[in-house]
Amino acid sequence: MGLLDTLKWRYASKAMNGENVSEEKIERILEAARMAPTSSGLQPFEIFVIKNQDIKEKIRPVAWNQSVVTECSHLLVFAAWDTYTEDRINYMFDLTNEIRGFKNEGWENYRQMLLSSYPQQDAEENFNHAAKQAYIALGMAMVAAAEQKIDSTPMEGFDANAIDTILGLREKGLRSTVLLPIGYRKEDADWLVNLVKVRKPMDQLVTVID
Amino acid sequence: MGLLDTLKWRYASKAMNGENVSEEKIERILEAARMAPTSSGLQPFEIFVIKNQDIKEKIRPVAWNQSVVTECSHLLVFAAWDTYTEDRINYMFDLTNEIRGFKNEGWENYRQMLLSSYPQQDAEENFNHAAKQAYIALGMAMVAAAEQKIDSTPMEGFDANAIDTILGLREKGLRSTVLLPIGYRKEDADWLVNLVKVRKPMDQLVTVID
Repeated sequence: MGLLDTLKWRYASKAMNGENVSEEKIERILEAARMAPTSSGLQPFEIFVIKNQDIKEKIRPVAWNQSVVTECSHLLVFAAWDTYTEDRINYMFDLTNEIRGFKNEGWENYRQMLLSSYPQQDAEENFNHAAKQAYIALGMAMVAAAEQKIDSTPMEGFDANAIDTILGLREKGLRSTVLLPIGYRKEDADWLVNLVKVRKPMDQLVTVID
Repeated sequence: MGLLDTLKWRYASKAMNGENVSEEKIERILEAARMAPTSSGLQPFEIFVIKNQDIKEKIRPVAWNQSVVTECSHLLVFAAWDTYTEDRINYMFDLTNEIRGFKNEGWENYRQMLLSSYPQQDAEENFNHAAKQAYIALGMAMVAAAEQKIDSTPMEGFDANAIDTILGLREKGLRSTVLLPIGYRKEDADWLVNLVKVRKPMDQLVTVID
């Protein structure tokens, strides 16, 4: 099944049946998120994979009480870096040098450019930038799930501060940015499952400049 | 080829050979972007597809003079809504009702909730939110390209105001947020093509909460 068929199949399931998604399948979803391209390769986010039902129960009331939060098999919380720091930037450049086995002048100059810009920028601006990268990974996770006929429900309707507190994210320099419950749809309880998918027509989305 | 193989194959090509990508293949890339899920289904962005070489030449100097800007076949500019307006929100809800053929009370209440919140929020906050949605579509476009063995190079290194002026985006209520040159790699000129892909190890990215 190619990407377009996968994207047609998927939808944001509004009710899940509690069935467990196998660890092997979850690993493929996380691997897709890990392989997602990000700005300067910094991967400026972490993913919390919540299997613990008590934690899901705590999150549900601060996530508009959406049932999928507790009905899902695994609840993914994408948490973006609260800012860019020297340590975080150096970690990725050092890792790159270690894996590739050499230092490159152009690459080191690029490191210095990032070190002399990102950490001095406003933290909120940096967080917004990091969150955008997390959304690329979010997209990859949704495709990897759908490719395996697993449902997922991207969710922004939640109290980020409350989730940050529940998971202790701020102390780790992280801020929750989007949730992704993963599981299997419960068709007879899901108002969205049989509705037609709606997208803008192409001419409302795309302008070609010849 | 599944998503993981596609993600391993892709990289951000640093030199392209000018070869044309067929319209059929570009259409599949744009269709993947169109089908990308977005918050409340609003699809709060547009995509400008630049084939015109003069426009590419104008953009290159304001995009760190990166050669792929002019060497690519099609230059995609993702432009996010500068804010959420009542008209923009109503358009998508009306389109949904039209396509689905009925009005639903829950859906109409949701429309009113968005109308009573998004348009009153700070425009910059709304733009950041819209840009995150564009990044999901950016990811889908990159996968759709790679799936067809087409290269693409996500680029944030550009002067957004300059590109907005070149393309007249502000007058349309849009702001450029990310570029995606699409084309075919020029292997002998591309310093990145043979380097190992680097990603954080899984244990640095993921925390499981049992």
